[in-house]
Amino acid sequence: MSEKTAGLLTLAVDAMGGDGGPTPVVEGVFAALDKGLKARVLLFGQEDRLRPLVARRAAAGAIEIRHAPTAVSMTDKPMHVLRRGRDSSMWLAVAALESGEAQALVSGGNTGALMAVSRMQLGMIAGVDRPALTALWPTNSGRTVVLDVGANVEATENELVQFAIMGEAFARALTAKEKPRVGLLNVGAEELKGHELIRSAARVLREADPEMAFVGFVEGNDISSGKLDVVVTDGFTGNIALKTAEGAARLVGSWIKEALNTSLNSKLASLLMIRGLKKLKARMDPSSMNGGLLLGVNGIVVKSHGGADARGVRSAVEMAANLAQRPILGEIAETVSEVANRRGDLLSASGPKAAAE
Amino acid sequence: MSEKTAGLLTLAVDAMGGDGGPTPVVEGVFAALDKGLKARVLLFGQEDRLRPLVARRAAAGAIEIRHAPTAVSMTDKPMHVLRRGRDSSMWLAVAALESGEAQALVSGGNTGALMAVSRMQLGMIAGVDRPALTALWPTNSGRTVVLDVGANVEATENELVQFAIMGEAFARALTAKEKPRVGLLNVGAEELKGHELIRSAARVLREADPEMAFVGFVEGNDISSGKLDVVVTDGFTGNIALKTAEGAARLVGSWIKEALNTSLNSKLASLLMIRGLKKLKARMDPSSMNGGLLLGVNGIVVKSHGGADARGVRSAVEMAANLAQRPILGEIAETVSEVANRRGDLLSASGPKAAAE
Repeated sequence: MSEKTAGLLTLAVDAMGGDGGPTPVVEGVFAALDKGLKARVLLFGQEDRLRPLVARRAAAGAIEIRHAPTAVSMTDKPMHVLRRGRDSSMWLAVAALESGEAQALVSGGNTGALMAVSRMQLGMIAGVDRPALTALWPTNSGRTVVLDVGANVEATENELVQFAIMGEAFARALTAKEKPRVGLLNVGAEELKGHELIRSAARVLREADPEMAFVGFVEGNDISSGKLDVVVTDGFTGNIALKTAEGAARLVGSWIKEALNTSLNSKLASLLMIRGLKKLKARMDPSSMNGGLLLGVNGIVVKSHGGADARGVRSAVEMAANLAQRPILGEIAETVSEVANRRGDLLSASGPKAAAE
Repeated sequence: MSEKTAGLLTLAVDAMGGDGGPTPVVEGVFAALDKGLKARVLLFGQEDRLRPLVARRAAAGAIEIRHAPTAVSMTDKPMHVLRRGRDSSMWLAVAALESGEAQALVSGGNTGALMAVSRMQLGMIAGVDRPALTALWPTNSGRTVVLDVGANVEATENELVQFAIMGEAFARALTAKEKPRVGLLNVGAEELKGHELIRSAARVLREADPEMAFVGFVEGNDISSGKLDVVVTDGFTGNIALKTAEGAARLVGSWIKEALNTSLNSKLASLLMIRGLKKLKARMDPSSMNGGLLLGVNGIVVKSHGGADARGVRSAVEMAANLAQRPILGEIAETVSEVANRRGDLLSASGPKAAAE
């Protein structure tokens, strides 16, 4: 560590994780630094590929390359990576988080492998069985925490309850609201709606954490409404909801473009309203949505989309830096342990490291 | 039947089904007729409530009131309606479809009750176990058939396969495409993604109907892309996807409004582009999305949203009239029986009426 970077926030970035290789990752890191990110960035990957990308730019003082001879591919099985991937950029980036050298991590790699490697090295927060991929969903009154958006394809009722408790603690750390409003995603708001598992999860949650501002069942349209701070669902439903909303927003975006191009008048009009349109464009940019936190592991692990471009990587890097400076892990650990003290049978009994596979 | 309406398409409308009582339903029917709908409409409900609503307007010649002393409420259990609801507007409207007097039906009532009453009176198409609520999802290249969007909260693999076969036949009847492209909604396109049930459904479908243009797994963002004609999912996931997309579109709509109101320039601009904006507004109007077909029962049953306003009801009525004129039921029956002949063990063995509960 140079004197210049001593005491500075340090981010570990897996430069080999995305579908597009290291170029968009390095460009994204530069973009974040150019926009004022105050952080030292450890870039994990093959040195001979990273060196020329980094050398192209000046002011690379905040970037350090850490050589990793191999990379995890999108098709590698998690178990294979745990056994044979210990010299991969993903493994070594997580190791920098585990050792305390870095305070947050970004990877665009294989979600299953990232989950397994993070659990193995960092362990789980005591009382949490499984990590949940967590999105910050845009609304008109800030962002809604939505989990799980794809870490697990199924969730038991106890896992849904754990997601709710983690999500509430995360929202509290993010927004400083004492009582974030939590909803459980279902096909109707009435108590009898949905399948047995979700109705049972609602009952268990009410018992487990009577302190929580749990509003009960919410529907798909409530996610964007801004009325909730946290929406809880299983990873299958959450992933499909997230991607469906992205697709709907893209369709509406194409309609807006068409409306702006229907006539000469419209083109003139779009010049007149350029400021409003710029804001609209920024709001609708899918890159600005990139980055999901792997909630439940003992560290700030941000999953970037595998296909993210430089702007997307920049969002994920900025998100990681932002989250690293909030008391997220402590808030979750405290909330989980309070609930566990009240009702020891409801949550996992595993210790911080014991849950790793 | 008056001479004027002889031979005309006849629609049965449950006027008591919606949350807002009969007023928006009657207004919606009038709006459809005003816009050129060529149909005779049988309006089922309490005569003393309907009479003044209908009398307010001239040209009510195409509307006939059919008295029904009771109405199904949103909280009535389906079994209760089957036993004690035979004088309800919903039951009598379905009876008009069963007798052949009407060719299609619209109801904004309780989905579970509508499903049960339709199955009981109309029966299922031979070889289909359960009905699926089917949405026509807007894209830039027409509409995508999405099912199930909420008739059932769970689906077995065989039910998903039946939904795919029905959806494909429906899309063929709608679009006249010989080979509609069908996808199964999942969290990733790779063969190993998702839970066991959905992977198994994909295998069974490939075997059951090798003739189908089945593209395999698709993701949430593919629904709006226009690349597919049919997207198959269970009613829990489909309902959440549909409502999440509606919520996302509403959020983007509020951003557009804001962009148009940020300055005097913007307001001037929106005057200049009024034509493009009008089209955009019509495209984004949630009312225009109202109406889902209950696919699988032996009749054209269109479920309108319980909270639909007059414009929403108008969309559902127009949809019912449009669908009544296409060879949907025959196309489904033929496709299901072809598949069943090939692989008798894969689909339900129940006859048209036997499946009714």
